[in-house]
Amino acid sequence: MPMPPDPLDPAWNERLTEAMLAVLGRASDGPHPDLDRFVELQRDYPRRGGKHLRGRLVLAATAAFGGDPSDAVPVAAALELFQNWVLVHDDVEDDSEERRGAPALHRQVGIPLAVNVGDAMHVAMWRLLIDSDRPWRDAVLREFLTTIRTTAEGQHLDLSWVHEGRFGVGRDAYLGMVDRKTATYTVVAPLRLGAWIAGGEPPPTLTPAGLARGRAFQVRDDVLNLLPDAGGGYGKEFAGDLYEGKRTLVLAIAFERLTPGDADRLRTVLDHPRDRIGRERVEEALRLIRSCGAIEEAQRFAEHSAEQGLERLREALRDAPGRDAVAAIERLVEDLASRAR
Amino acid sequence: MPMPPDPLDPAWNERLTEAMLAVLGRASDGPHPDLDRFVELQRDYPRRGGKHLRGRLVLAATAAFGGDPSDAVPVAAALELFQNWVLVHDDVEDDSEERRGAPALHRQVGIPLAVNVGDAMHVAMWRLLIDSDRPWRDAVLREFLTTIRTTAEGQHLDLSWVHEGRFGVGRDAYLGMVDRKTATYTVVAPLRLGAWIAGGEPPPTLTPAGLARGRAFQVRDDVLNLLPDAGGGYGKEFAGDLYEGKRTLVLAIAFERLTPGDADRLRTVLDHPRDRIGRERVEEALRLIRSCGAIEEAQRFAEHSAEQGLERLREALRDAPGRDAVAAIERLVEDLASRAR
Repeated sequence: MPMPPDPLDPAWNERLTEAMLAVLGRASDGPHPDLDRFVELQRDYPRRGGKHLRGRLVLAATAAFGGDPSDAVPVAAALELFQNWVLVHDDVEDDSEERRGAPALHRQVGIPLAVNVGDAMHVAMWRLLIDSDRPWRDAVLREFLTTIRTTAEGQHLDLSWVHEGRFGVGRDAYLGMVDRKTATYTVVAPLRLGAWIAGGEPPPTLTPAGLARGRAFQVRDDVLNLLPDAGGGYGKEFAGDLYEGKRTLVLAIAFERLTPGDADRLRTVLDHPRDRIGRERVEEALRLIRSCGAIEEAQRFAEHSAEQGLERLREALRDAPGRDAVAAIERLVEDLASRAR
Repeated sequence: MPMPPDPLDPAWNERLTEAMLAVLGRASDGPHPDLDRFVELQRDYPRRGGKHLRGRLVLAATAAFGGDPSDAVPVAAALELFQNWVLVHDDVEDDSEERRGAPALHRQVGIPLAVNVGDAMHVAMWRLLIDSDRPWRDAVLREFLTTIRTTAEGQHLDLSWVHEGRFGVGRDAYLGMVDRKTATYTVVAPLRLGAWIAGGEPPPTLTPAGLARGRAFQVRDDVLNLLPDAGGGYGKEFAGDLYEGKRTLVLAIAFERLTPGDADRLRTVLDHPRDRIGRERVEEALRLIRSCGAIEEAQRFAEHSAEQGLERLREALRDAPGRDAVAAIERLVEDLASRAR
């Protein structure tokens, strides 16, 4: 089907969803009610919508570097599928309640089935890439290897801090975790993938540009999570990060700014598992965090990082031939930093 | 390093372990105590030993079909790594206590870290294969795609029966699950991979031969789990399958053979979660199962399936040029069906 040239056109969203649903449904050997259900569970998160910002960033980057975005569909869909299986496992790991406005998968079917569903989605992601016969396949496969490994490293840092009850990790350690866990697969990888698909080599300056935009995205997300009126389109529960004991830049700043007594109190309050922390403790934590201006400072950091990232991005894409697509990239990363997952 | 021609030589075991540990350690960007720990966690299960029967089956099959087993090392190591990440996730999914004589990973570090460690091992498995530049790479990648998907389907069947409290699944449904969950990656895939590496196409008769041997392996495992004196080298807790409420051929037979009253009683007893079933209920279940001769019948099934599989295997390998390696395959599948994981 002929596709519109603009990667921001909603028709691309449908095409990416279709590509994901198709690969998740393949390879079943005849009707089998239990296995049909298995396919449906794998399709659950991809069906819940989402803006496919990462996938569309792949399409836009491909066009910016002079390639054909239709060529990039399997790769963009694979990156979206990566996001989806990671979310299934993340929701288990964080014991999240909701995902995109509905209960998290493991809250519907239990941890065992959900972990296995995520594994099946993971292998389907590789199928999308391996089934390609394009000249860029090898470079793309290697980009995915690095991206997934890096993301798992970031997730390990985040989870192990929670596991060990370490709150005062400091801004640099926190941002190093964000670079790995979020910024790499959200911004750096899509841009680099576009360059490979267009037949070139990603300019090295893309990486710092993407990391700065990725940090802005995550920190903005941290901030949004603590604004009660963010609700609606945001799709995550208010203050869920506090219920889950997640490290955020807001917390790193609060621990720097609070008096030792208040910092101790915040640590004590947050050091409860999700099922025992309760609303009152979360509200006390919120009061302490608000009292020291940590939310505002994190917001300023996000804005600065977003601006810096945009400047670097323009520089990195200065000679890219697809100027309309460069503008689309800027709009997409703007969307990322100002909106949600 | 020059390797002995015999895939049964213990030197191959070390080489496969080394290949696994090497890929799990790669791609870290400088010293980082938390990430060094992440690598160690990924190396935990591969370091716990094991006989690498599946990996050595790949080596032997390669030699049998006329190839060089040294060529097959990354593939054999990848298949072992597959087994290892699947075990990390399986242990979470079954809430197993032990693995190879030590506590299961999630019992040491919690479910969140363990799930993520398994994901990192999964991507390292793909790295071993994608990094290869051999002509068989594509065929091998596709074999892994199919094998992992099939294994996840089998795991889904097994887990969803537990989740829904369905005990009377019947022999055929049970064996269909075993074909997917165990027999495919344990016997069929190693044999087929050897054929691809040697440059040929796997003979279609390999699949039924491998499935029959794989069934024998799993059912023997089910039986061993209920023999108190199997202990020692077996490496799994006695009657662990009953504690975990797993479906086995022994149970399928017992539900066919017991009087309706006894079958109801068995169902009631087994329908308790692992942390509440308790030793007395497990002992009652064991008495009921023993009373109807289900263990012996399952054992006879395993022996018959093993014999049938061996016959079919000999037939499938009749024209394979590496006769010594064919003998090694027979010894390895013998080992599989008569011993443990």
